[in-house]
Amino acid sequence: MKVNGKNYRTIWMEDSTVKMIEQTLLPFEFKIIECNTYSETCDAIRTMMVRGAGAIGAAAAFAMAQAFMQAPPTEREAFVLKARKEIEGTRPTAQNLFYAVNRVFNVGANSLDEAIAEAQRISDEDVEASQAIGKFGNELIYDGMGILTHCNAGWLAFVDYGTALSPIYTAHHEGKKVMIYVDETRPRSQGARLTAWELHNEGVPHAIIPDNAAAYFMWIGKIKMVIVGADRIAANGDVANKIGTFGKALAAKALGIPFYVAAPSSTFDENCPSGRDIPIEFRSPSEVHYQSGPDKRGVQHTIRVCSPTSEAMNPAFDVTPAEYITGIITEKGIILPNAEEIKKLLA
Amino acid sequence: MKVNGKNYRTIWMEDSTVKMIEQTLLPFEFKIIECNTYSETCDAIRTMMVRGAGAIGAAAAFAMAQAFMQAPPTEREAFVLKARKEIEGTRPTAQNLFYAVNRVFNVGANSLDEAIAEAQRISDEDVEASQAIGKFGNELIYDGMGILTHCNAGWLAFVDYGTALSPIYTAHHEGKKVMIYVDETRPRSQGARLTAWELHNEGVPHAIIPDNAAAYFMWIGKIKMVIVGADRIAANGDVANKIGTFGKALAAKALGIPFYVAAPSSTFDENCPSGRDIPIEFRSPSEVHYQSGPDKRGVQHTIRVCSPTSEAMNPAFDVTPAEYITGIITEKGIILPNAEEIKKLLA
Repeated sequence: MKVNGKNYRTIWMEDSTVKMIEQTLLPFEFKIIECNTYSETCDAIRTMMVRGAGAIGAAAAFAMAQAFMQAPPTEREAFVLKARKEIEGTRPTAQNLFYAVNRVFNVGANSLDEAIAEAQRISDEDVEASQAIGKFGNELIYDGMGILTHCNAGWLAFVDYGTALSPIYTAHHEGKKVMIYVDETRPRSQGARLTAWELHNEGVPHAIIPDNAAAYFMWIGKIKMVIVGADRIAANGDVANKIGTFGKALAAKALGIPFYVAAPSSTFDENCPSGRDIPIEFRSPSEVHYQSGPDKRGVQHTIRVCSPTSEAMNPAFDVTPAEYITGIITEKGIILPNAEEIKKLLA
Repeated sequence: MKVNGKNYRTIWMEDSTVKMIEQTLLPFEFKIIECNTYSETCDAIRTMMVRGAGAIGAAAAFAMAQAFMQAPPTEREAFVLKARKEIEGTRPTAQNLFYAVNRVFNVGANSLDEAIAEAQRISDEDVEASQAIGKFGNELIYDGMGILTHCNAGWLAFVDYGTALSPIYTAHHEGKKVMIYVDETRPRSQGARLTAWELHNEGVPHAIIPDNAAAYFMWIGKIKMVIVGADRIAANGDVANKIGTFGKALAAKALGIPFYVAAPSSTFDENCPSGRDIPIEFRSPSEVHYQSGPDKRGVQHTIRVCSPTSEAMNPAFDVTPAEYITGIITEKGIILPNAEEIKKLLA
């Protein structure tokens, strides 16, 4: 997708260097950083310089390939096993991470070249899947539609195009007029910071709304559909996604508004029977206590945004049970969120 | 209630001066400001130095009394009529404002002393109603209960005690162990800033959670009841309250968790047939775009917390239809949210 008119991917690997857009600086600064070792790439995942299901997957694939490149010939096996554990320990919820590490690890045992090729393949497949999701999801969008999205499942969350936003980009490029309601997505505000920035760069009409306002805009008839991404989809169709997704799904169901999840096959976890089995990452309370951003002169500050003496709790994801999901937009078509359709998809 | 061990009301009038806690400075600075004219009191309402249903009502009552005090004898009628319009124009949604202005205006026509006494009476009645709400609501709370509240319907939102928080204070003083989940309540963060500050001052265990996390904590069984306040209750039991209330009600209903509204009779509007008839105030997008607070050295900054080029929408309230409300805790007891019970209450 375009930044200031130039095409970028969110993350890519050149030789043994992983390059990525530093997402914690967005939307105020656009910068490409370089990770020269798998540990540096792990740090980038952990600190959310790269975030979002597909982008984490690609980062993890590249990190695994980097580990094979770095491994000393005499203790190759131990080195890459240790690296695998470290990569898998960066973020516990995103299925794409485990999927990607597993694929690269398996082929890397035989050949370094294959490990590198596999990592590149995962990244390219992510792009193709996102494009296909855009094509299928576009069929749900009519001219003049108001659509809610939560968090960022745009191209920044993947290698390119994204999932939840990909159908919106396709519709927009086809000339359909859409209006996107962008949930702020506290505490890290990926909606207000990343999705809004993406939509602005692509010229798609949109407005940021407080997470609290989504149900109201559904109630007054402005929001006609919800599309969100997913971090992991259980075998029964339950979906783990950014905290707050579940609340929007409950509101959509009660108010008769279709609620779609957009995700590639790599986000499905057949080994996870239901949403109750998905581990939910709790992040630091400081993400709730503090916010960072520039003042009017562009000087960055971190400020306390709540009472100075109160604790906070910060679950990063929630689970939306399948019964609240209208359909899942995948790279192979739109499926119902149930075990049978998911089995067919992954077969 | 207590601040640093000393008892305060949120707002009071001495002679012709209205004194109040400057709430936009909280929780970082505790300051009493003085409004010497009705126009100054109007400014304080408009800029939310005083906010919350009951506190706005008391402020409006005092402002109306100030107008009678200021009125030049030769053009008394025109002066107080103009003042009434100005006071009523400060905030469009809160029913207590119209209720209070009306009462003071009606008696003020005959006697200035009566106007002042009526304003003081409205303020005192607010305190008594809040205490009674605490007593009735306390019966719903058991030892060990997790309770969610949204925005601030504590003593800062009233003259003392509050509505949604009053039952919690009563339960806490009785020795029941409770755990309060405090919705941050973006965009103005009254939960994170005011409710958390109140609960800390009273020593009630609590944690701030992102608005997005409420449904998750219900789903994992931590939140067993929701209590919120109300800015206006229609004749059919629909409730206007801080934006985000509706979403929590939808989640509570879907997950089988009781959802209570706490409000005195003065918040009911018999002339408003349903929630669709309640005007919803839209506030400046800048409340979504910017946040203010102190850095680590205590220096206040206002920072941009979203993409610099995106619009925002900022409805201040939403409407929760009666069907999602378990009961309304009033100063006369707990009633069902329907026309019949409301008529009986107000009879």
